[in-house]
Amino acid sequence: MKKLTYLIITLIVFPFSLQAQNQLHPDYNELTDTKPHTSPEVWKNQKLPVQLQWGSIDVRYPKHTIPVIPTGNKWTGKAWKGERVNAQAVLWSNQPLKNITLSVSDLRSGSSVIPSSKITPSFVRYVMTDELNKDGKGGCGHRPNKADWDSSLVADVLDAKMRHDIESMTVQPVWLNIWVPSQAQAGKYQGTLTVSADGIAPMELKLELTVSSRTLPEPKDWKFHLDLWQNPYAVARYYNLPLWSKEHFDAMRPVMQRLANAGQKVITASIMYKPWAGQTEDAFDSMVFRMKKLDGTWTYNYTVFDQWIEFMMSVGIDKQINCFTLVPWELKFDYFDQATNRVLFVRAKPGEPDYDDYWFNFLKDFSRHLREKGWFERTTISMDERQPDMMRHAFELIRRADPEYKVSGQGNYYPEVEPFMYDFCLAYGQNVPDDVREVRRKVGKITTVYTCCTEPYPNVFTFSTPAEATWTIWHAVAGNYDGYLRWAYNSWTKEPLLDSRFRTWAAGDCYLVYPGRSSIRMERLVEGVQDAEKIRILREEFQSKGMKSQLRKLNSAVSKFMPENLTKDNAAEMVNEARKVLNNF
Amino acid sequence: MKKLTYLIITLIVFPFSLQAQNQLHPDYNELTDTKPHTSPEVWKNQKLPVQLQWGSIDVRYPKHTIPVIPTGNKWTGKAWKGERVNAQAVLWSNQPLKNITLSVSDLRSGSSVIPSSKITPSFVRYVMTDELNKDGKGGCGHRPNKADWDSSLVADVLDAKMRHDIESMTVQPVWLNIWVPSQAQAGKYQGTLTVSADGIAPMELKLELTVSSRTLPEPKDWKFHLDLWQNPYAVARYYNLPLWSKEHFDAMRPVMQRLANAGQKVITASIMYKPWAGQTEDAFDSMVFRMKKLDGTWTYNYTVFDQWIEFMMSVGIDKQINCFTLVPWELKFDYFDQATNRVLFVRAKPGEPDYDDYWFNFLKDFSRHLREKGWFERTTISMDERQPDMMRHAFELIRRADPEYKVSGQGNYYPEVEPFMYDFCLAYGQNVPDDVREVRRKVGKITTVYTCCTEPYPNVFTFSTPAEATWTIWHAVAGNYDGYLRWAYNSWTKEPLLDSRFRTWAAGDCYLVYPGRSSIRMERLVEGVQDAEKIRILREEFQSKGMKSQLRKLNSAVSKFMPENLTKDNAAEMVNEARKVLNNF
Repeated sequence: MKKLTYLIITLIVFPFSLQAQNQLHPDYNELTDTKPHTSPEVWKNQKLPVQLQWGSIDVRYPKHTIPVIPTGNKWTGKAWKGERVNAQAVLWSNQPLKNITLSVSDLRSGSSVIPSSKITPSFVRYVMTDELNKDGKGGCGHRPNKADWDSSLVADVLDAKMRHDIESMTVQPVWLNIWVPSQAQAGKYQGTLTVSADGIAPMELKLELTVSSRTLPEPKDWKFHLDLWQNPYAVARYYNLPLWSKEHFDAMRPVMQRLANAGQKVITASIMYKPWAGQTEDAFDSMVFRMKKLDGTWTYNYTVFDQWIEFMMSVGIDKQINCFTLVPWELKFDYFDQATNRVLFVRAKPGEPDYDDYWFNFLKDFSRHLREKGWFERTTISMDERQPDMMRHAFELIRRADPEYKVSGQGNYYPEVEPFMYDFCLAYGQNVPDDVREVRRKVGKITTVYTCCTEPYPNVFTFSTPAEATWTIWHAVAGNYDGYLRWAYNSWTKEPLLDSRFRTWAAGDCYLVYPGRSSIRMERLVEGVQDAEKIRILREEFQSKGMKSQLRKLNSAVSKFMPENLTKDNAAEMVNEARKVLNNF
Repeated sequence: MKKLTYLIITLIVFPFSLQAQNQLHPDYNELTDTKPHTSPEVWKNQKLPVQLQWGSIDVRYPKHTIPVIPTGNKWTGKAWKGERVNAQAVLWSNQPLKNITLSVSDLRSGSSVIPSSKITPSFVRYVMTDELNKDGKGGCGHRPNKADWDSSLVADVLDAKMRHDIESMTVQPVWLNIWVPSQAQAGKYQGTLTVSADGIAPMELKLELTVSSRTLPEPKDWKFHLDLWQNPYAVARYYNLPLWSKEHFDAMRPVMQRLANAGQKVITASIMYKPWAGQTEDAFDSMVFRMKKLDGTWTYNYTVFDQWIEFMMSVGIDKQINCFTLVPWELKFDYFDQATNRVLFVRAKPGEPDYDDYWFNFLKDFSRHLREKGWFERTTISMDERQPDMMRHAFELIRRADPEYKVSGQGNYYPEVEPFMYDFCLAYGQNVPDDVREVRRKVGKITTVYTCCTEPYPNVFTFSTPAEATWTIWHAVAGNYDGYLRWAYNSWTKEPLLDSRFRTWAAGDCYLVYPGRSSIRMERLVEGVQDAEKIRILREEFQSKGMKSQLRKLNSAVSKFMPENLTKDNAAEMVNEARKVLNNF
């Protein structure tokens, strides 16, 4: 009876949710790549019309260039229990292929099984990208004219679709993500990836995954302080759903679940209109309603804020709430004016009476509300890349409103600002002195590092070397930071699946994942966070057990991940070298 | 001790309030009149360089044209106790005059006195006007290019200033308004108007006012249903004061007090954004705050509405509240959207679900609120110049929300609409059948008439013959209407004192009074309302006492005031003839 019920539910619910999924994420055609590629003659002269080989996760295989791949049809990998590992195969064909499907067998080690349901094969899709600034010094600045930039298609999207067609002379990479169950037995597991298509014999590749006896905790228990800023406004716009409607939250759930699975610790909340002057395709708006009443007093409503925070907590992201901001890039502050029945703006600097009037009353009421919700201890008032003199006024005001407020900030290291920062995120290349960090750790303060458009590498532009995402997290460990921050998890462009270029910054800067889909960049970043957790666990073990030579070996591998050792080409090599060390413990 | 306190208060408060008054109403220079006028030669040849004579209140004396005035230096008038009467003197000079001051003596009749404080002398100031449409058929339509219209300066503003300078070859009319105290003794009162200036001997004119034994009630007790629409938004903008601030209410008090003194019965309230699609210089906005909450329900706040209504009632205008509107000229309806933190608009027609959702919930809540405030019985939901089919849907909705709602409307006579209208205001030339009006009167319903840009005459454009304002009210009486409505009491233009022209309609259509100042038009309109009250009182007396011949005589004088008897030139003559009859009872 139970089995039958389950079957019926599966039959009823599954098709519906699949349908919903398909409605949200219909298939699409990629933009045209205008770059030179392998000539038709060379394609025609391929020994086999259709070929499948294991490739490397370090490579973005061009769409129309025959890949140069070492032979050997078995992939071998190592993983801890509970860890996710990635592999990439490459299919290429000089003839059109219809209805390509991917399937993976269960992985077996004697009587032990990693079921195929834990393995996600994806078609790697191509998105339009551009390039670094012409001087090679990063990707900041405005890019109003796309024609000024060398654009090309790059492999990045990991598409969730079930079937795929390709034209002749096309490379179709296939991404595999294996999430080893925490309860798996250690052992050497074997299985098969099968690629089929109309009119061809199914092709197979072998997998061999060695599962160690060590266990990686679940993402929610990871200690690495990952902070990728979420943009709920982009999700509502992209799916054309009413903001904060049930449909909007439903659409956000898989996006934010993917983030929770990466070990995200922080909820991004906006407590005013356009904290960053609307720099993204979809501006952040205030999650707090403020009304200035006729008598000059203020009244607040937190319905939107509360629903967003509660939603994110329900997804499993609940350690910290960062509220932006008291010192926005443009010093104008929205409120609903009861008299004029309109949204108006206060324009004032920290320290000015109008600024005080706007923020002091709010901060007092907000503290009351946060305490009522039980969130006060995990909430910070956050300030992004502001000058110390401006922040000093804001600190004073915050403390006056409630001396127990926590403050967070992103930017350069200012010794006079540091003591006020509960969560201090430093620009790549900046750091706090060792003694300061030790004090910070002792009192439970967090110190992290961020990268953004500034860095030519390491970065997660859509044209960046995939291993740079992993490298960056190794760097956070090497630099003795507590975590890593990136300013944009999903500030999607107008057509994020087709075109990652934006009116500012190098392409891909605004988002790490795609609507309904992961990316090579995101998966490689998760690898890094897993590595950081593994390093932490091993260090704790080696220290507690006095395994000094092991500790030295591990620390030596980690310590290489400093800016001076990174070139534009060696991120993959560095990561792979260090991984060998890490995975041998 | 009490006397001393009073003196101190006078000394302290009076200079301050004078100062406040001067700050609100600084002196100004009129625009230049480019029209031809009396030549310098003729001016130079005047027998006396400076002359002062009684003129007529029916004339707008041109600014630079030597007036043609019958000689005789005594003005005689008749008034009831409690009535206001107007007189006009004219000063003209072929040399510049500095520091002209006006003073009026007490008026004396034996031992009886009408104190000079009851007499207001004003400098008549000149404002820019234009003209009727080129076809002479009214003043409607857009006037984007001022150069397309024949513009000129006309005498209309009654300035409150204490001293005035004029250049050579200038006519300076002086307006006198005598408000006879209700407690005055009947009798023939005499007094003097004195005009002084630097370097000339003071000039005098005699006044003789015969006060009858009849008494006109105070304006608040007048029965004539006067409805001139107020625009609080124009006052805030003109004086640059925060909307609904104490300063804004302070600035509105004299403006609205003048309206109360005219016998105004109705408070104009706007319950949505731009009931008339923002046709005035300052658009009407919603006095009600509406929030659509995340869960789709509505919440309302009436703070602004309540303060406006309470303010108007404190001024003495408290009989009726007309709320605009369920059927605006542009069918879009504002609300604050909790999700987006922005003001959004519903676009829907009466009968459509979105329209119902927006209005039905509001009307239910509004009825609750009005009943709580004790205002429900005197409130109407008002609809301006809409088609019957659109109104029908709105009626249905209003009654569904609360069957006891009153409705008011302005426009043409539609028999199918009439029964729903508590306060039905008909376009000039339209009327309800006699039997319908009798039914309406019996059940306490109001039927009034309005004029607007449509009428070339009678009208209150700044270039209209002043007596047309009076004529219009006589017409309301003759047409057996209960009152008169005009769509704009103070929808001021950008610079109302300088230029009465607007981007639409003939000049002066938007306002009857000036900031801090009355007008010839307004005073002549008040005369008409007083006449209407006097006619009502006399009719009641004649009827109750069976004085049939008197009644016939009065009714015969009234009955002439019908459109077919009015020409573009005869309003003053008609009014003066009828006044003779009226003032002889």
